[in-house]
Amino acid sequence: MSSALPAQDDRRFVLALGCPDRPGIIARITSFIAEFGGSIMEAGYHSDADSGWFFTRQAIKASTVPFGLAELRERFAAVAAELGTETEWQLLDSGARRRAVLLVSKDGHCLHDLLGRAASGELPATIEAVIGNHPDLAGMTEAHGVKFHHVLFPKDPAERGPAFDEVRSLVDSYHPDAVVLARFMQVLPAELCAHWAGRAINIHHSFLPSFVGARPYHQAFARGVKLIGATCHYVTAELDAGPIIEQDVTRIDHADDVGDMVRQGRDIERVVLARGLRWHLEGRVLVHGRRTVVFT
Amino acid sequence: MSSALPAQDDRRFVLALGCPDRPGIIARITSFIAEFGGSIMEAGYHSDADSGWFFTRQAIKASTVPFGLAELRERFAAVAAELGTETEWQLLDSGARRRAVLLVSKDGHCLHDLLGRAASGELPATIEAVIGNHPDLAGMTEAHGVKFHHVLFPKDPAERGPAFDEVRSLVDSYHPDAVVLARFMQVLPAELCAHWAGRAINIHHSFLPSFVGARPYHQAFARGVKLIGATCHYVTAELDAGPIIEQDVTRIDHADDVGDMVRQGRDIERVVLARGLRWHLEGRVLVHGRRTVVFT
Amino acid sequence: MSSALPAQDDRRFVLALGCPDRPGIIARITSFIAEFGGSIMEAGYHSDADSGWFFTRQAIKASTVPFGLAELRERFAAVAAELGTETEWQLLDSGARRRAVLLVSKDGHCLHDLLGRAASGELPATIEAVIGNHPDLAGMTEAHGVKFHHVLFPKDPAERGPAFDEVRSLVDSYHPDAVVLARFMQVLPAELCAHWAGRAINIHHSFLPSFVGARPYHQAFARGVKLIGATCHYVTAELDAGPIIEQDVTRIDHADDVGDMVRQGRDIERVVLARGLRWHLEGRVLVHGRRTVVFT
Amino acid sequence: MSSALPAQDDRRFVLALGCPDRPGIIARITSFIAEFGGSIMEAGYHSDADSGWFFTRQAIKASTVPFGLAELRERFAAVAAELGTETEWQLLDSGARRRAVLLVSKDGHCLHDLLGRAASGELPATIEAVIGNHPDLAGMTEAHGVKFHHVLFPKDPAERGPAFDEVRSLVDSYHPDAVVLARFMQVLPAELCAHWAGRAINIHHSFLPSFVGARPYHQAFARGVKLIGATCHYVTAELDAGPIIEQDVTRIDHADDVGDMVRQGRDIERVVLARGLRWHLEGRVLVHGRRTVVFT
Repeated sequence: MSSALPAQDDRRFVLALGCPDRPGIIARITSFIAEFGGSIMEAGYHSDADSGWFFTRQAIKASTVPFGLAELRERFAAVAAELGTETEWQLLDSGARRRAVLLVSKDGHCLHDLLGRAASGELPATIEAVIGNHPDLAGMTEAHGVKFHHVLFPKDPAERGPAFDEVRSLVDSYHPDAVVLARFMQVLPAELCAHWAGRAINIHHSFLPSFVGARPYHQAFARGVKLIGATCHYVTAELDAGPIIEQDVTRIDHADDVGDMVRQGRDIERVVLARGLRWHLEGRVLVHGRRTVVFT
Repeated sequence: MSSALPAQDDRRFVLALGCPDRPGIIARITSFIAEFGGSIMEAGYHSDADSGWFFTRQAIKASTVPFGLAELRERFAAVAAELGTETEWQLLDSGARRRAVLLVSKDGHCLHDLLGRAASGELPATIEAVIGNHPDLAGMTEAHGVKFHHVLFPKDPAERGPAFDEVRSLVDSYHPDAVVLARFMQVLPAELCAHWAGRAINIHHSFLPSFVGARPYHQAFARGVKLIGATCHYVTAELDAGPIIEQDVTRIDHADDVGDMVRQGRDIERVVLARGLRWHLEGRVLVHGRRTVVFT
Repeated sequence: MSSALPAQDDRRFVLALGCPDRPGIIARITSFIAEFGGSIMEAGYHSDADSGWFFTRQAIKASTVPFGLAELRERFAAVAAELGTETEWQLLDSGARRRAVLLVSKDGHCLHDLLGRAASGELPATIEAVIGNHPDLAGMTEAHGVKFHHVLFPKDPAERGPAFDEVRSLVDSYHPDAVVLARFMQVLPAELCAHWAGRAINIHHSFLPSFVGARPYHQAFARGVKLIGATCHYVTAELDAGPIIEQDVTRIDHADDVGDMVRQGRDIERVVLARGLRWHLEGRVLVHGRRTVVFT
Repeated sequence: MSSALPAQDDRRFVLALGCPDRPGIIARITSFIAEFGGSIMEAGYHSDADSGWFFTRQAIKASTVPFGLAELRERFAAVAAELGTETEWQLLDSGARRRAVLLVSKDGHCLHDLLGRAASGELPATIEAVIGNHPDLAGMTEAHGVKFHHVLFPKDPAERGPAFDEVRSLVDSYHPDAVVLARFMQVLPAELCAHWAGRAINIHHSFLPSFVGARPYHQAFARGVKLIGATCHYVTAELDAGPIIEQDVTRIDHADDVGDMVRQGRDIERVVLARGLRWHLEGRVLVHGRRTVVFT
């Protein structure tokens, strides 16, 4: 598996592709790679019987490719065309800097965790900026040398349009590969969901589809569940209903009140968001309809 | 912890009690036990700040009680009265035989598992009978020396009243401590839920409250979740909404289709039902509203 | 994923291969399959940087192969030869009956579980026979219509040679694809380990390499661990040191004594053995040195 | 459950006690509390059949105690004396500031995590100082406003005595309730283990007792285990053999090399250390011989 910060020989060109399934696709793609002597370091394949689609991710050792990424993309476009007009694909350079922008509110545990991972080289991206609808997390952000923007959100949801416009402008000015809602607590307008489609990632503090919306730990307490969870998913216009990237749970019992759930839930939220974001940044997540293929 | 089949010195008188909380309850109960020299082998306590109720379970070594269960009950009734008129309690004898009746349909994995546990002494009950709305599982049941009853259910749900009446009569004839819906696949009428309240236990093949109702693995597949689960709960008139006793999950990924989920889900269903049923039979589960206190 | 009992169209020819890694292997293999129009339903690949070996498993839809398994093997042998003299491979027919023989002692939980899975079609093999060094499990075995052999083992370990010879003859008479030590409690002599190399599978009731040898739950209790586990591994001459196929754990706490661990451990042993055995039978496990590659 | 930073009404006086078991202990203790009208908010009890000892932890609402902690201790001493001369007990004030000192080396993930928890009020202690045998983590520490001390350790282990003396003096100058080896990578001399007995807590990056000592992830890779873990334990003179407070594991597979294990292991190390440390600080951990009783 590629590490977060690739050393020279760890650099990979990563192909992620989805297309209607038919025999010979793997042979076509791997022959293309073999022709120029490329070494495949990691390969994932999935034939989805339900949808009739085929998905693959291949990490080619960059030092075995006798030309650059641009030419690789150009050459591969011809192969992709053979696989049909519906084919979707991308080719990433693991050595290129990836950018993330974080949206936060008052709860700092996910932010603090991601700042730590970025600092230690564990997150395959730089955190370009953090935008908060409250100023509370400015200090923590700036202590890590990261720019913090405070955008004031009016109390009346109907009047938040200009605030979202400002968030949009700020985010877009960094050209991020990932827009991370790290416990942002604001519902994105549909047009922003569409604008950042496939790049906006949320962490929801429940095991979806249970407990959509506000105060999921309160909902979990009221229902008396024996496990609580967290879900990392792409943001879509329907609240908490986007394609799921990763989920995990932790056991609770009757002695745990809502406050205990909040505290224990944080440990799940942190790791689920960090895993999901890393997989997204490494091109491991392919979305098809409401489901994801994740090559870990 | 008490084992399933208590040896002479493992016999316990088990008190389970819930009442409005106030200072001194533990002292009152444990002083009562200390007065006659009773040894408490296991004790669980829970003060529920949300409801203002107090719950306890205490397992007293039977050989340290200088009188029988009937007298213990009579003496304790006076203590319970001091704790208020809302107090709910029971005193079980772990050495007394407990009875379970199982309702099944065609899927035999939970039945087979429980028959095995009963045979090896791992289940603290005898399985008195198995009732199926299909005859498929008669052979497996009878091979374990357990009586099987087949009750024919009409295709039209509106005409199933007499069939449920027959099930009710059969079940009640065994005076069971637990009526186990071991993948029964039929929704109990409200009057049966009320009749067996606190004794009817269901295993639902999802992590409730997600995927209520029919075909939960199909629902889970469509939603693209990354974990599937099972839930053991008391049956109430509202479908799959009764108090939860136990839940667990297992990880799946994009390569798992519905059939894979069904297969992997069985391993979770088996253990979740077995755990929940055992806890119920050992007096470890106290219900308060929609939540349970489980002293494991 | 292929189900346990393939319907006509679910039949697969399964290739499992390991060889020294170099560019072009995937292309060579998949081109071979594409040439005759074979549909790859499942594909797993692994380049092991540590050993420099490459491993793959490919499940080809049998109905897309225009010739039989024998000819497929013959044709593929030429491809394998190109990949080097060290190449190890096999081609299985998922539609062919696989055979398992079980060795047991007195504890019946793993046996009961496997008999149930075999009966419900969940295990991709028939259980040909069960051999016990005690007669206790004869009844359970025969109730499932499976032959039981009792082989008497002398108390003195030095005198057990003839008993092991008898076990060997009995086992070999069934030509099994898997020899399963389902809590057999006897250490196999080195020559039997060698004779059944790659086919003898053990379930050890600890999370190896912790607690090798006898009474692992007692060892776990004495050490005060907070999780207990089980390990499914291939049997080799060194006790409990063979290549690991699967492991899992469950949480315990200070209130659990050895008896509680034994009971809770059974639920882990059952599923870990069932998973490991299924993966072995489906050709999902490739052994290299002391490690396994498991394509699930 | 008590939260990390108790509000006025969340303040508790916490009794933790162990003594030889006999009937009437719970009654004696709870009657003592009931006499002055104390409200028990949390209670844990454990009778250890193996050792014949009894353990309890009781959290009394401070506002229901009509006198101070000193007088409570004085009064309880008489009760403890009744319970035998071997009785060990302590009474903590959850409202009193608890102090932790951290020992670190170069790996910052546990330090970063604990600094974040302390800042957000999730850790029931202040981090008084961080001491490193390398200067690498000074910046991260000081950015959180915490004092960092660098103590130079000679390469030759035989010459490290003065460095350990300096560490001891520094640590002791803060009078810590917990001395946390947050990936310190140095083996404490036996006299320091004795000096800080019951207060020095280590996080070991394996599921002990597997993979004691150096480079546990390398050992895990070589053995081919399918789960990796972390262990939080009290430090004793025997390396990695002290009483275990908490453990957890995470699943890996053949595709994970040592670097992947290191990365994934960090997420386990962080939470296992944080849980264990919190339980220690809240008086939830009672040590008896090589085992712990943990009232969570």
